[in-house]
Amino acid sequence: MDYPPSVQRLIFALRQLPSVGPRSAERLALHILKSDSSLAESLAISVSEARRNVRPCSRCGFYAEGPICEICSDPNRDTKTICIVEQPTDVLSFEKSGAFKGLYYVLGGSLSPLDDIGPEELNIPKLLARISDEGVQEVIIALNTDVKGETTMLYLARELHQLNIKVSRLATGISIGSSLEYADSLTLSHAIGDRKEV
Amino acid sequence: MDYPPSVQRLIFALRQLPSVGPRSAERLALHILKSDSSLAESLAISVSEARRNVRPCSRCGFYAEGPICEICSDPNRDTKTICIVEQPTDVLSFEKSGAFKGLYYVLGGSLSPLDDIGPEELNIPKLLARISDEGVQEVIIALNTDVKGETTMLYLARELHQLNIKVSRLATGISIGSSLEYADSLTLSHAIGDRKEV
Repeated sequence: MDYPPSVQRLIFALRQLPSVGPRSAERLALHILKSDSSLAESLAISVSEARRNVRPCSRCGFYAEGPICEICSDPNRDTKTICIVEQPTDVLSFEKSGAFKGLYYVLGGSLSPLDDIGPEELNIPKLLARISDEGVQEVIIALNTDVKGETTMLYLARELHQLNIKVSRLATGISIGSSLEYADSLTLSHAIGDRKEV
Repeated sequence: MDYPPSVQRLIFALRQLPSVGPRSAERLALHILKSDSSLAESLAISVSEARRNVRPCSRCGFYAEGPICEICSDPNRDTKTICIVEQPTDVLSFEKSGAFKGLYYVLGGSLSPLDDIGPEELNIPKLLARISDEGVQEVIIALNTDVKGETTMLYLARELHQLNIKVSRLATGISIGSSLEYADSLTLSHAIGDRKEV
């Protein structure tokens, strides 16, 4: 004996989600069965609607419900500054900080020759064309600080310098509010190297 | 700036699930957006189907897709023995062990006067009627061994003895494969009291 087939199908579907193992999938499924039917309904509807309505913005690659995302279509943004990030979620992190008022460009990953991911796969030629077409004045490269991200940063910086624009990267150093005890030595050495006079 | 409305609705719906906080809901939602659309589709369909098709079995309270569950409609089960459990999931635990071939009865909870949960709320009168109608010979009470479970067990035992049938409870003792080091003292005292000659 096992669960009825439709419960088994639900458990199987839930297991496809990240960090949901067999036990959590079972727990989630049983919760859905026990709770009010409006929960199941809103979950089912929102899953299909989100998947159907949301597409990458054709200009920057962030999530959009129309052809262009809300950021790209906002007339109050500074169109002369572009921040290059790896993932759409990185855009949200900057937006939450409120520290950036320009536009974004989502690469969708980083250069990785071993995985056959070159500049073409990350739409870098399209990005370079956009930058020279639109008279962009500064590009901020905000990629992850792992090996792949650094390689991609160096490649982008070289290409962008040929367009004669200002290229910058995020400052590296210790996190605000963190304890020095937990900072790794590479971060500490960057933080000492880039120390600021007070 | 925030996610497009349909992504926000999806995140909100996912947050209603147990042990899914704001961050995990976001991660799950973004995974659904990124992955193949068949995942979203099968998830949405299985959620609504499971919620629509699955009902408590009218005889025992376990999950059923028809009026009667698969266990109650199986002609090979021993209908003279009934095992009383708290939750539908407990039925599955016994079924996985393969040690019980009788029928079940799911109370749906335990007696709790402070929460206004009395015998009526747990359908105990219906259970007692079924037991005397169907000529059941033995009832195994398999409730949780917490205070509420024990109270419910004592109440059920008293009621069942009036029907002149055999009433038993699960053996208590140390778990198979566990180390004595981790057994609590109450369990150990039960295990010594119920020791078996070898």
